[in-house]
Amino acid sequence: MLTLEKIQQAQQTIKGVARVTPLTPCKNLGKNVYIKAENLQLTGAFKLRGAYNKISSLTDEERARGVIACSAGNHAQGIALSATKLGIKSIICMPAGAPLSKVEATRNYGAEVVLVPGVYDDAAAEAERLVKECGYTFAHPFNDEYVIAGQGTIGLEILEQLPEVDQVVVPIGGGGLISGIACAIKSIKPECRVIGVQAAGAASMYVSRRDGHPVTLLKVSTIADGIAVKRPGDLTFELCSKYVDEIVTVREDEIATAILALMEDQKTVAEGAGATSVAAVMFGKVDATNKKTVCVVSGGNIDVSIISRVITKGLTKTGRIAEISVKIADKPGSLMALLQVVSNTGANIINVTHSREDKHSDVVSCIVSMVLETRNLQHVDDIKMELEAEGYELLYE
Amino acid sequence: MLTLEKIQQAQQTIKGVARVTPLTPCKNLGKNVYIKAENLQLTGAFKLRGAYNKISSLTDEERARGVIACSAGNHAQGIALSATKLGIKSIICMPAGAPLSKVEATRNYGAEVVLVPGVYDDAAAEAERLVKECGYTFAHPFNDEYVIAGQGTIGLEILEQLPEVDQVVVPIGGGGLISGIACAIKSIKPECRVIGVQAAGAASMYVSRRDGHPVTLLKVSTIADGIAVKRPGDLTFELCSKYVDEIVTVREDEIATAILALMEDQKTVAEGAGATSVAAVMFGKVDATNKKTVCVVSGGNIDVSIISRVITKGLTKTGRIAEISVKIADKPGSLMALLQVVSNTGANIINVTHSREDKHSDVVSCIVSMVLETRNLQHVDDIKMELEAEGYELLYE
Repeated sequence: MLTLEKIQQAQQTIKGVARVTPLTPCKNLGKNVYIKAENLQLTGAFKLRGAYNKISSLTDEERARGVIACSAGNHAQGIALSATKLGIKSIICMPAGAPLSKVEATRNYGAEVVLVPGVYDDAAAEAERLVKECGYTFAHPFNDEYVIAGQGTIGLEILEQLPEVDQVVVPIGGGGLISGIACAIKSIKPECRVIGVQAAGAASMYVSRRDGHPVTLLKVSTIADGIAVKRPGDLTFELCSKYVDEIVTVREDEIATAILALMEDQKTVAEGAGATSVAAVMFGKVDATNKKTVCVVSGGNIDVSIISRVITKGLTKTGRIAEISVKIADKPGSLMALLQVVSNTGANIINVTHSREDKHSDVVSCIVSMVLETRNLQHVDDIKMELEAEGYELLYE
Repeated sequence: MLTLEKIQQAQQTIKGVARVTPLTPCKNLGKNVYIKAENLQLTGAFKLRGAYNKISSLTDEERARGVIACSAGNHAQGIALSATKLGIKSIICMPAGAPLSKVEATRNYGAEVVLVPGVYDDAAAEAERLVKECGYTFAHPFNDEYVIAGQGTIGLEILEQLPEVDQVVVPIGGGGLISGIACAIKSIKPECRVIGVQAAGAASMYVSRRDGHPVTLLKVSTIADGIAVKRPGDLTFELCSKYVDEIVTVREDEIATAILALMEDQKTVAEGAGATSVAAVMFGKVDATNKKTVCVVSGGNIDVSIISRVITKGLTKTGRIAEISVKIADKPGSLMALLQVVSNTGANIINVTHSREDKHSDVVSCIVSMVLETRNLQHVDDIKMELEAEGYELLYE
């Protein structure tokens, strides 16, 4: 069973390999809120800690056979770099559609990447087949005591960096990260609360806890791809039941808003999974009033092409972009009159589409869709009220 | 005249107000390259240092009159926060079209914002008028000894954090930042090189240095809006002539690539101006081989709506996105045959547009435009060669 001693042992093992990441105050979230920046970890995520601790634990014979893992994400990079540092061969199975940037990054850390046609489950099956055929040592991403002990070193660091911590908020996918952190924290400071966060669209640990046993979700869907896990591990489920005080969930727009806030206020890049802990505090799922609160930002490997979508979602959610569609008379001067009303409200017009062929338009009217830069949600409401007061008909989806 | 003592005095003045920002290794740029992260400064940029030092230097009588500045950017926020911290009224003139996010941020730091119809020069004229009419104390963004001394504290910090530094690379707009840093560094360690970087589209100090006197550019154009300055200050020109070893320029696509690299590799958000120093090293304008090199990342206040454009530009520049247009026969199966060829090259297809009404198409053919996710520039070339080998006609803009 996992113990504090095993986590302390892991801390010695990973010393000089994994970085001690900074714990930084995050005043925009509240005066007692801090971020544990595992997005600044080598490979861009905490996974290196567990991976390195796991591979270090292998016997010479297991090392000689090489390690294999199945992952298109942070676990892949953690295993690849750890194996390379220890002079061991590593094979990573990924679904063929994985982003090329992840494939390249994993190769650059020294792994041999096997692209498997199909989805994640197909890649996992192929990894299993290769273990049988070639004798590779399999490295599970979370349901493994050495992996969990490695992640637990984050808990030790938090207690060293902020001994007066009152609560720690941790993203949950398979549960390896929070199991390790919670064990470390509860063993040393039992009165410190440990709260898990899941994306509402992939809340397998949340549901499992409610039902009292590990549950397999039929499908998971979230921009937080790092924690899109259908079923928690048996081991991690047990550790969470023992050590974790509470699990909360956050929505997709809340995650997007948190990513955006971290970029704008903290100038730091978090991936969806990493930002869930911040989202939980931002949106009141976790009360940080008068409690020294540490949000673990677990990683920063967000696909840059996703960032654009996140920005738009986050700006809309906070009322800094608004899309408003209005029906106007199809005659000269109508568009200009409309734009004048909008302009008087202090909004900046980013984009205007004027269409006669919209499904909402009839023969004598047409539809104007405007994308506006606005100050906040109140401002958006004010603009809509002003338009309606001027007699415009607003269209809602 | 600016002296080391004045910069050391400034360091005492801003102590406890401005952060000592981290100096972090940046291995992806080279093993001797470091970033001085002024994007993590309060207000998101170095300007706070100079602004606070300037306002602290005012007499009681000058303070009572209130301070005024003209800026839609980092200087505005630096002045606003400094004035508020010192209990002084501040007025910031901005062009009316300034991003609402900048207006709000400046107001949130406690300033009164005056939105002036027109462009920057109009806002500057209004500020001048208000100085005459209301007696406010004007705070120049760079051509001021106290401001420059404040920025120079970055030089002192670099020498404390990395005494063995060989060269420092610094963005130049008006020249206040580099003047202060260069004076500090050359006074203490004359053998350390100080290199300035300008955007090629706003290279006023570069041109002024070449011509031997301050030159006014007719127009400036760059995504690095923080350094889009038409004319260096007389004072900063003189200090640069005395202390700066060399000035280099970087192109827009190089700046975009540097912003992207900082996000992906360092998980940190830099604005265009801030990333120019990194671009200079990335693209060989500054040789960092075997030299301990510090790139000053001056700020992180990039408008999030610009980030999307930067990402696309950066991905294209490094061959990770490619847009390829091909003419194909307008008959069943043609599109599928084409996509098969592309797919065999290992590229991921992001987007396909199939058009019969393109200006390049004739009656029996149509145009397919594909956006592809690719590995690197070599991969893009390989795909094009493969398509041509298969008999496809590629269209170039």
